[in-house]
Amino acid sequence: MTQTVPTPAHIVQQRYRDADPADPAHWNPVLQVLHEHRSVRRYLPDPVSDDTLRLLVSAAQSAPTSSNLQVWSVVAVRDPERKARLAAVAGDQRHILQAPVLLVWTADFARLRQLAGDRDAPLDGADYLESSYVGFIDAALAAQNAVVAAESLGLGTVYIGALRNKPEVVAAEIGLPEHVFAVFGLVVGHPDPAEDARVKPRLPQQAVLHHETYGLETQRDHVTEYEGRIAQFYAEQELSHSWTDRVLTRLASEASLNGRHTLRESLFKQGFRLR
Amino acid sequence: MTQTVPTPAHIVQQRYRDADPADPAHWNPVLQVLHEHRSVRRYLPDPVSDDTLRLLVSAAQSAPTSSNLQVWSVVAVRDPERKARLAAVAGDQRHILQAPVLLVWTADFARLRQLAGDRDAPLDGADYLESSYVGFIDAALAAQNAVVAAESLGLGTVYIGALRNKPEVVAAEIGLPEHVFAVFGLVVGHPDPAEDARVKPRLPQQAVLHHETYGLETQRDHVTEYEGRIAQFYAEQELSHSWTDRVLTRLASEASLNGRHTLRESLFKQGFRLR
Repeated sequence: MTQTVPTPAHIVQQRYRDADPADPAHWNPVLQVLHEHRSVRRYLPDPVSDDTLRLLVSAAQSAPTSSNLQVWSVVAVRDPERKARLAAVAGDQRHILQAPVLLVWTADFARLRQLAGDRDAPLDGADYLESSYVGFIDAALAAQNAVVAAESLGLGTVYIGALRNKPEVVAAEIGLPEHVFAVFGLVVGHPDPAEDARVKPRLPQQAVLHHETYGLETQRDHVTEYEGRIAQFYAEQELSHSWTDRVLTRLASEASLNGRHTLRESLFKQGFRLR
Repeated sequence: MTQTVPTPAHIVQQRYRDADPADPAHWNPVLQVLHEHRSVRRYLPDPVSDDTLRLLVSAAQSAPTSSNLQVWSVVAVRDPERKARLAAVAGDQRHILQAPVLLVWTADFARLRQLAGDRDAPLDGADYLESSYVGFIDAALAAQNAVVAAESLGLGTVYIGALRNKPEVVAAEIGLPEHVFAVFGLVVGHPDPAEDARVKPRLPQQAVLHHETYGLETQRDHVTEYEGRIAQFYAEQELSHSWTDRVLTRLASEASLNGRHTLRESLFKQGFRLR
C-alpha cells in the first residue's frame, strides 16, 4: 500500500470535514502540528525523560503571562500509586494509569503571597474573582504551549478537567498549600498506535469567527451542518451520537457537573476569596 | 557583520538567562517558535489577510476543548474607529491602534443556550462558577494556538487583558448578547522591526516545576536568582525595575486592578450566574 502525504488543504479539511476545502495561502510545520492535534487516550508504558519534561516546561514558561505575574506552577506526577489515586478522582480514566506522567497545572498565588508576607506588603488584589481568572488563564496558556511542544516531539496528551471533581483530594495528594489550586491535569506519554486516534471535527468556522460584531441567529444553521459532519466521525467508530444532545446533557443540571457545582467552596478552602 | 545562527541551547538560555544552559536532547521548528515568543507592542500598518485569519482560527479550533463543548467564539475587529474605542477601554494602548486586527476572545454559552431554548431543555449547569472557568479556559487554549500559528507566520501578537477593565463597554461595542463574555483581546499584526522586542526571561524552572508534591520554601532563592537575571534584561532597555516590586504593586489593592474588582457584577450583567 502506498501512503499519500496529506496536503495542507487536506489537513485543514480533516478539522472541519467540509466538502470543498480551500488551499491555505501559507503553510509550515508549526501549522501542521497545531492542526493535527488529537486527544490520546491509549498509551504505551515508555517513559518521558527528564530532558523532555524540561523542554515542555520551558515551552510552557515561554507562553505569555498577564503582567509577567507568572501565577502558575505545575506538579509532575510519575509515582504509579499517586497517579492511581488521582485517576480515581477523575472517574478512573485508564489513560492516567497507562501514561508515564500526569502534569497537574495550578493557579499559584502562594509564591507571591510568600514574597508579600516577607515584606509585610499588602496583596489584596489577589482576593478578587478577577485574580482567579488570571491564574486559570495563565495556567491554560502555559499548558497549551506544553501540549504543542509534546505533539511536536511525537508525544500524545489529553487534558483532565475531572481533577476539579474533588479539588480537596487533589490538593492533599500533591501537597498544595493555601493559595494554590489545581486547574486541570494533562496526561503526557507515547501514543499507543493501536488506538488510531482521529482528528475530531469542530463547528464550521463561521459559527465561532465573527467580524466586527457578534452574530447569534445564523449559528443554528452551522450547528445543523456540524451535526452531519460529526455524525460521520462517530459512525467511523460505530457510534451514533448527536453533538447537541451530548453538550446539552453535559450542562443540563447541577448533577451533570460531577461534583464541580461546589467549586466555589473548594477554592475558598484553598484561600481564594473570589471577592 | 556576520550573523550567527542561535543554537537550541542558546534559544532556551534566552528564556532563563541562566549562565550554563544544557543542550536540549531534542529540537524542531515548533519548539523554536514556542521558545522565541515575545510580546510585540509596535506594529507596521500592513494588513492581515482573510486567508491568514482563517488559518489562525482553524489552528484555534484545533486546540482541545472541554467535552467538545466549544464554548468560545472570537470577534475580529478591524474597523479603525471601533479599535480606537476599544483601545480607550484598555488605557489607550497604542499598539491596538497600530495593528490591523484586534481579536476579542469570548467565553460563549449563547450558542448552547439557544439550542437548549429551541428544545425547551434545561441548561442549569451553565449557571455555575465552574462553567465560567470552562469558558475562560477554552478561550485561552484556543487563543494560544492562534498565537503560536501567528508567530509561525512571522506575525506578532500581544494579549490585552485590559478589555476586562470595562466589560460593559466592550460587550456593547462588539454586540455581545447575554451569555457571551469578552475574556481578553489579542492584537495581531506585522512587527515593526524598530521595536526590537526581546525574549523576556522567566522564573528559573525549579520555581514552577515540582515533582510529585509542591514545594514552597525553596522558591525564595529562585526569586532572588531571577531578580538578578531580569535586572539584566531591564538594564538593556535602560530601566531599573525589581520583579517583586512590580508584581506586588500590580496586586496590592482593589485599586490596582484597574476596575476589574467589579468583574463579578459585569459577568452577572452578561447572564453568568456564577453559582
